[in-house]
Amino acid sequence: MVSVGVIGGGQLARMMTPPAINLGLNIKVLAEAEGSSAALAATMVGDYNHLDVVREFAKTVDVVTFDHEHVPLPVLEALESEGVSVQPPSKALQFAQNKLKMRKRLSELGLPMPAWAEIQDADALQTFIDTHGGVAILKTPIGGYDGKGVRVVRSSDDAIDWLTNLTQYGGSLLAEEKVDFVRELAQLSARRPSGEFKAWPLVETIQENGVCSIVLSPAPKASAETIEATAKIAETVAVGLGVTGVLAVELFEARDGRILINELAMRPHNSGHFSIEGAVTSQFEQHLRAVLDLPLGATDARAAHSVMVNLLGVDDKNDFVQAYQGALAAHPEAKIHTYGKGARAGRKMGHVTVVADDAHFALAEAKGAAAVLLRG
Amino acid sequence: MVSVGVIGGGQLARMMTPPAINLGLNIKVLAEAEGSSAALAATMVGDYNHLDVVREFAKTVDVVTFDHEHVPLPVLEALESEGVSVQPPSKALQFAQNKLKMRKRLSELGLPMPAWAEIQDADALQTFIDTHGGVAILKTPIGGYDGKGVRVVRSSDDAIDWLTNLTQYGGSLLAEEKVDFVRELAQLSARRPSGEFKAWPLVETIQENGVCSIVLSPAPKASAETIEATAKIAETVAVGLGVTGVLAVELFEARDGRILINELAMRPHNSGHFSIEGAVTSQFEQHLRAVLDLPLGATDARAAHSVMVNLLGVDDKNDFVQAYQGALAAHPEAKIHTYGKGARAGRKMGHVTVVADDAHFALAEAKGAAAVLLRG
Repeated sequence: MVSVGVIGGGQLARMMTPPAINLGLNIKVLAEAEGSSAALAATMVGDYNHLDVVREFAKTVDVVTFDHEHVPLPVLEALESEGVSVQPPSKALQFAQNKLKMRKRLSELGLPMPAWAEIQDADALQTFIDTHGGVAILKTPIGGYDGKGVRVVRSSDDAIDWLTNLTQYGGSLLAEEKVDFVRELAQLSARRPSGEFKAWPLVETIQENGVCSIVLSPAPKASAETIEATAKIAETVAVGLGVTGVLAVELFEARDGRILINELAMRPHNSGHFSIEGAVTSQFEQHLRAVLDLPLGATDARAAHSVMVNLLGVDDKNDFVQAYQGALAAHPEAKIHTYGKGARAGRKMGHVTVVADDAHFALAEAKGAAAVLLRG
Repeated sequence: MVSVGVIGGGQLARMMTPPAINLGLNIKVLAEAEGSSAALAATMVGDYNHLDVVREFAKTVDVVTFDHEHVPLPVLEALESEGVSVQPPSKALQFAQNKLKMRKRLSELGLPMPAWAEIQDADALQTFIDTHGGVAILKTPIGGYDGKGVRVVRSSDDAIDWLTNLTQYGGSLLAEEKVDFVRELAQLSARRPSGEFKAWPLVETIQENGVCSIVLSPAPKASAETIEATAKIAETVAVGLGVTGVLAVELFEARDGRILINELAMRPHNSGHFSIEGAVTSQFEQHLRAVLDLPLGATDARAAHSVMVNLLGVDDKNDFVQAYQGALAAHPEAKIHTYGKGARAGRKMGHVTVVADDAHFALAEAKGAAAVLLRG
């Protein structure tokens, strides 16, 4: 039986399990700890930072892929040199791991982005701020997610701690134009090592405190030009960076009409959870197919509208099943997903998707079910 | 976490696993052997005929349900007397385990069936044959499935072996009118212990050598009267027999227009596999919800048509994944399910579903993908 190995036991690995079962693929997960979200498929527990751990895991599978982007490049490069199929490969993942490298490469590809600069001292940062309307988005190149490692700065003094670290440890920061955007979009796609590429419908993502809260598929009232442009952007990124598997391109729709690349994720992504019920082929099935270099499935929508609402932890309570009586009774159309994770305020604990012909109905039902579940 | 225990490690338990993952339910399977179809969720291996084995398993879960109907009634009754939630309960399952009991109970409920008689000797059988057009369907009351334990007889001599067994062991046979039917239908439904009932769209099932081969959802050109009648039949059966969880009622559409109950299954059923992609709530998710007495999900179709084609083993070859390159490339709409079972001619090895607005497209795509997979 063909085996797919997933490094990381989070909800993305968990959600790869159902399509692996359907397709008769063996899924094996290298989890960080016992009792992970993907525990049912976990075959090994260990630290992905250690080559010997990852190498031992890789021996049990036909391809290695990821629940997250944090496996050190030297570990992946060592595996590749030993003949392991790593998808996406290290040469692509380097850009997902380092936002500065990513901006440089996307600039070489001529892709539309916010203005940006590599920052190594306070003067350079102040200059960037002064020439971009008195404000900048400052990011650590490595390790940020869900709003962490990102800061709005109006003076170099706002980043004095990070700049001090630079003088001590070297390295750089990434300054970006603060885009005046009307909304955020995401373009999900998948690509096989042998080249086949497919994109899902463009979606709108709505954030709350820097974390994705709601996804509307398709993005309401997106123009034909925008739809064409974002699909083309995704393909250029995938090909140009050598991405395999699922790629999520997060985008700004600027008030002046520009479509600008915000972030990249080289794995199934929160913006694509709607596809489990909302598309002929889900991002999780497609990811498995893509990393095995199997033909990609159709990405057409199953209905006119899909709405996904995240279940973001409000406190340390996570017994959603206790709230199922109320939520399921009031919302028979809602498809509820919970991840079996320990609760924490703001943490992604699960999501609800409603697929329907009517966009307002889908949004109301999904929000309604999520509200009942979070009320507990 | 709420735990559902499934007795039996076949493909039905396997296909309950994805919705359990989605809903954040703990699924535990008591499998007959290592390496079962539902191995990923198997927490115990043992013989379900032994009360001590099943009792030990039941202690680890909140509710006990089934992949098949073969657990002995005394075992289930003992569990129930010890306070275990068994769904469907033994008082319902007795009718699924014994076709004669089932006919008697359905007759009491006034439900439409082929003419039938309990047979205890050759004379009675010959009389039934003579008064029903010179032919009868003869069944062993217990243990038959997929065409096994069923025989067409035109004379009591055709059943001399079974009748001889009766004289030795006691017991009865079930003789039924050989219905002149134009097609077979199936009405899938689910019912909660607390009473809620929901039916899926009526489907047509096409058999090949006594085994389900193709399912068309909805049943083509079914009249409004037929659709209303079959949903009513399913509800009367579910309530009258005390069924909980998913119930499949297999039906004949007779040439004279009668709708007649053929067989019952008190579990997810081959005629409902289309619902994984073809309905808002799949039969597997609904079964989990029903046995936990959680509110049932919407059963509406996701598109105008769903077609399911079984992958019936042609020989001892079962490496479908090897054929995925061809099948997936030619049929990007096809949703392929393989069960990880050892191959055998005629055995249900997997299935393919295509959901589409056009019925002819769905049938052609599903059959096309199945053909590529079976060619290997």
